Amino acid sequence: MPAAPGGGGSATPAHGAPPLLRQINSAHVLAALRGAGPLSLSDLAARTGLSRPTVGQVVDQLHAGGLVADVEPGHDGAVRSGRPARLVRFRSEAAYVVGIDIGRNQALVTVADLAGTIVAQHRGVTSGASSSADLLAALRTAATSALGRAGIRRADVASVAAGTPGLVDWPRGAVVLAPQLPGWKIELARELRRSFRCPVQVENDANLAVLAERRHGLARDAHTVVFILWGERVGAGVLIGDQLHRGAANAAGEIGFLALDEGTTAQPDEAGRGPFERLVGAEAIAEVARAAARRRGGALPSFIDAAPGAVTAEAVFAAAARGDAAAVEALRTIAARFSRGLAPVLLVLDPDLVVIGASVSRAGATLLEAIEASVAPLTLVRPRLALSRLGDEAVTLGAVELALAEAERRLLPGPALA
Amino acid sequence: MPAAPGGGGSATPAHGAPPLLRQINSAHVLAALRGAGPLSLSDLAARTGLSRPTVGQVVDQLHAGGLVADVEPGHDGAVRSGRPARLVRFRSEAAYVVGIDIGRNQALVTVADLAGTIVAQHRGVTSGASSSADLLAALRTAATSALGRAGIRRADVASVAAGTPGLVDWPRGAVVLAPQLPGWKIELARELRRSFRCPVQVENDANLAVLAERRHGLARDAHTVVFILWGERVGAGVLIGDQLHRGAANAAGEIGFLALDEGTTAQPDEAGRGPFERLVGAEAIAEVARAAARRRGGALPSFIDAAPGAVTAEAVFAAAARGDAAAVEALRTIAARFSRGLAPVLLVLDPDLVVIGASVSRAGATLLEAIEASVAPLTLVRPRLALSRLGDEAVTLGAVELALAEAERRLLPGPALA
Repeated sequence: MPAAPGGGGSATPAHGAPPLLRQINSAHVLAALRGAGPLSLSDLAARTGLSRPTVGQVVDQLHAGGLVADVEPGHDGAVRSGRPARLVRFRSEAAYVVGIDIGRNQALVTVADLAGTIVAQHRGVTSGASSSADLLAALRTAATSALGRAGIRRADVASVAAGTPGLVDWPRGAVVLAPQLPGWKIELARELRRSFRCPVQVENDANLAVLAERRHGLARDAHTVVFILWGERVGAGVLIGDQLHRGAANAAGEIGFLALDEGTTAQPDEAGRGPFERLVGAEAIAEVARAAARRRGGALPSFIDAAPGAVTAEAVFAAAARGDAAAVEALRTIAARFSRGLAPVLLVLDPDLVVIGASVSRAGATLLEAIEASVAPLTLVRPRLALSRLGDEAVTLGAVELALAEAERRLLPGPALA
Repeated sequence: MPAAPGGGGSATPAHGAPPLLRQINSAHVLAALRGAGPLSLSDLAARTGLSRPTVGQVVDQLHAGGLVADVEPGHDGAVRSGRPARLVRFRSEAAYVVGIDIGRNQALVTVADLAGTIVAQHRGVTSGASSSADLLAALRTAATSALGRAGIRRADVASVAAGTPGLVDWPRGAVVLAPQLPGWKIELARELRRSFRCPVQVENDANLAVLAERRHGLARDAHTVVFILWGERVGAGVLIGDQLHRGAANAAGEIGFLALDEGTTAQPDEAGRGPFERLVGAEAIAEVARAAARRRGGALPSFIDAAPGAVTAEAVFAAAARGDAAAVEALRTIAARFSRGLAPVLLVLDPDLVVIGASVSRAGATLLEAIEASVAPLTLVRPRLALSRLGDEAVTLGAVELALAEAERRLLPGPALA
């Protein structure tokens, strides 16, 4: 590529561009810079279709705003003759965002730069929290640790998003119903704003997970995606086209409260679990496996010797992966139960893709195949099912996505970039 | 209002308007004319914000295309002095659309003009049809009768839409699965195009019903609407924002195939009914009422004396409205069963509004209140439920809506009008 002249030589008038046009031009230039290496102004002109003088003006504005930095010529490795071209790059370090996944046992905090690159993660323990004050304190500590690990000052955080179980009054950010967490019915966004001096958004955790799966995972091209967070709890996030389907009361996807058996209700138990969560959640997986192992007698796998609380779904998945007959039988039983809750989701939404995430995403092929087999007779159309590869990071990564969108709205001199 | 000069006197240049702008201007003028009485060109200029000469040009174009007619001055009842203004009106009779509801027992055909005003309706009998050829012949006969009753030539039909039970390959218009109708797995749009020389669209019936409820009914302002067609069959149409949610395989909303009880499957029975249809469909309503009446003994309401096939859900609704205890008990039983299928819909979608349509829309307050009471313990959020007031016309009226949208795309010189 020939070197471009360092200064504007074109006669195209650009000074008089109206504000909206300037914003759109800025957004185009930033979109071209983000994800690319250092670019010359001529490269930018070619990639954006803008005139060279317009690009120069936009770059100067972005430079003044701290979003673009000059790169020393030669640092891009190219050999040029004559006067070196001005090279610029996106300053993804101009600000940072924080994504928080609030769970019963841990808070997973992710710090990312404006390019979405993860700078630090921190897992804080929340299992000791017995009140919303305790849980908030644990969250603040976890966030402080994450920022410390990232070496980022609180003032450099441009946007925060947090995912929580339960129903969230969107966009106010108040938790209005969350039987899963003790006392967790608070003005969460307002509380978190006391720790951060920037916009804070709060969203249902499964809704964030489906955003992460769209951005990083298996759902990049699917139109209607259901992400099922399946661990101790069960909840779903629904993405239709590019819109989260939140529902009239932000209660869409609350399948953990499906009362499948006649006579049961959606009423949570003392632990805050809905009927479907009691039927297929991590605790039920361990219980069913213990029962199956006992029934089979003979060679008992290690997981049934453990104390009830110590037998985990993970141990069952590992035993099933080793071919342990009781564990495999247990996963088939759980698959059959799960399919009874999955089938209505499929009949109502007919999604392109269902992704199973959270701890059960590590269950492996045995469970997935058993679900495919048991749900098929319960639906009209064979669904596409997959296990998420985002492990337990889907919610925190989705929170980063939501926080980034807000940061872009605030920081960039134009409309939000997709 | 002062009379406007009959000819253009303004200096505003309008001749050079580019095609897109001309289209937009045409659409604005037509939108102002549709639904209004005769308007003068000055009225149109005031209502559209266009200049008087531009309006004159657009009206001339529309006049040439047959979409606008002149109205004799004085016919609007106003008294004017001086030279009378040119008055024009939308020629809603410029073309017609046909909407068809294809059912197991009848075909309901509606002919409407371009304003959506119904010109004629005809109910054809389809219950004798034992093959797709029979059913198609019955449809053609019904459509011919409707056009005859409307006094409309086939050549004046600009667009046709038909609603059918089952899964429809959209936009191809082929029925790919319809256990409810014998042999009904055909290239329906292509077949109907042999009867009409215009675009023919085919859509799932419940999807059309929800469109009608948006346009004419209770769902005008709701964001997420579920319309449940509930008669012998049960199916749902889902509207999210202004988009039909069809699903990946056009199978969204097929709740008639919900297999709620452990051990049941989505497999249709010999009559093509899914498990939820067998549980709550019109036949089940009659059965449950007969059983309730027999159990109560004593004064037997008239409906249990009839032969099994002659006892209808309508008779049960009428008996319940009279306060018959057995009929009321039966509707409560049906409501409890229905709620078990409705609850998953609510937990997955959290709609703003659920409208119950088709024959059960005539069940009255007893059933609706019983559903509200029995579904509440099964969900997290109290839903808004209503009985459709469109009776059995929801599907045919929705078909008219779909046909009108297509007619506008074809006939109007601009983008489709909302």
